[in-house]
Amino acid sequence: MKLLEEMIRKYGEIKNDEVLLVDSFLNHQIDPQLMMELGKDFVRHFKNKKITKILTIETSGIAPALMCGYLLNVPVVYLKKSKSKILNEELYETTVHSFTKDIDYLITCRKSFLSSDDSILFIDDFMANGEACLGAIDIIKQAHAQLAGIGIVIEKAFQQGNAKVSQAGYEVYSQARISSLEKNEIQFIDESAVPRTFCGIDR
Amino acid sequence: MKLLEEMIRKYGEIKNDEVLLVDSFLNHQIDPQLMMELGKDFVRHFKNKKITKILTIETSGIAPALMCGYLLNVPVVYLKKSKSKILNEELYETTVHSFTKDIDYLITCRKSFLSSDDSILFIDDFMANGEACLGAIDIIKQAHAQLAGIGIVIEKAFQQGNAKVSQAGYEVYSQARISSLEKNEIQFIDESAVPRTFCGIDR
Repeated sequence: MKLLEEMIRKYGEIKNDEVLLVDSFLNHQIDPQLMMELGKDFVRHFKNKKITKILTIETSGIAPALMCGYLLNVPVVYLKKSKSKILNEELYETTVHSFTKDIDYLITCRKSFLSSDDSILFIDDFMANGEACLGAIDIIKQAHAQLAGIGIVIEKAFQQGNAKVSQAGYEVYSQARISSLEKNEIQFIDESAVPRTFCGIDR
Repeated sequence: MKLLEEMIRKYGEIKNDEVLLVDSFLNHQIDPQLMMELGKDFVRHFKNKKITKILTIETSGIAPALMCGYLLNVPVVYLKKSKSKILNEELYETTVHSFTKDIDYLITCRKSFLSSDDSILFIDDFMANGEACLGAIDIIKQAHAQLAGIGIVIEKAFQQGNAKVSQAGYEVYSQARISSLEKNEIQFIDESAVPRTFCGIDR
């Protein structure tokens, strides 16, 4: 997505070969107009999937997920990184490993918010090693819901997330795919040079 | 705000005399259309305040703040509840006490996202004891920014938050004000019976 790539080039800060900071427009300060454009792009991509619910993980997936949910007129559920004391027995839960922080954390979802009738679009701000996404998939499975699509804002394509999730049988649509942050330079995968997985739909 | 009160009556779950669960439309599952209506209501209320930035706190303030920021065409900044290892020396920070969880937690903001030129609207999902709001005010002061308004989705008016923040010299606009959760019943403050602080603007 050109607009997003421009924003990343202009405002992204490379911290090292693996860490890109985009906290000036995505995950600390948020550009709401950009979030709406990301939402529209996800809608264009997934419009035929009969989505009934958007699923994301707190915190930084919420903004693009909310705009997408607004445009599709469906609820947005965010998986929580804490365990409610009040809802103890009513939760789906799974453990996610964060390679960045080298910790395991729990993600939880109130059972009543996901059902076997749901066709779910999972949206997140980043995909790196894919652990968060696999955690969400686990929760979707526990709920016997259908995973209709995975939408990622920024994919660090030099890490293993997309491969892992694809091996698990799911397709990932990423709005920007970064192939390298080496030599203090942001390289994107040239999507026009890659065979399109989704025919006839603009990336 | 009538629509919000209806949603609270319909979907709110009273857990005890102090705890109201609204996680089916506000802070776990989110109703995006409602968030847009909340955003519009905040805009109606604060439209003359020349807002340059919305400030909120992760996680559940983000959705209404984002819609308000979208409508006002200004950035949204959310205060983080963790301390970035990368941005160590570039952060404003303050400590907030949570009476609900009986813990202190740090909230932080990257310094470059708030400036003395900013006229800030602080938005949050709940006001109970006002500690989160006072923490945000502290950070706004550290940045020498101007606090132009405080917008709260649900105020637990039987707790001390509004009084504390008012005593500190700030006015709070709450979209729904709950006067009691006792006897398993949600009571709202009848705004039509209360003198309006902001003349001529619909609450």
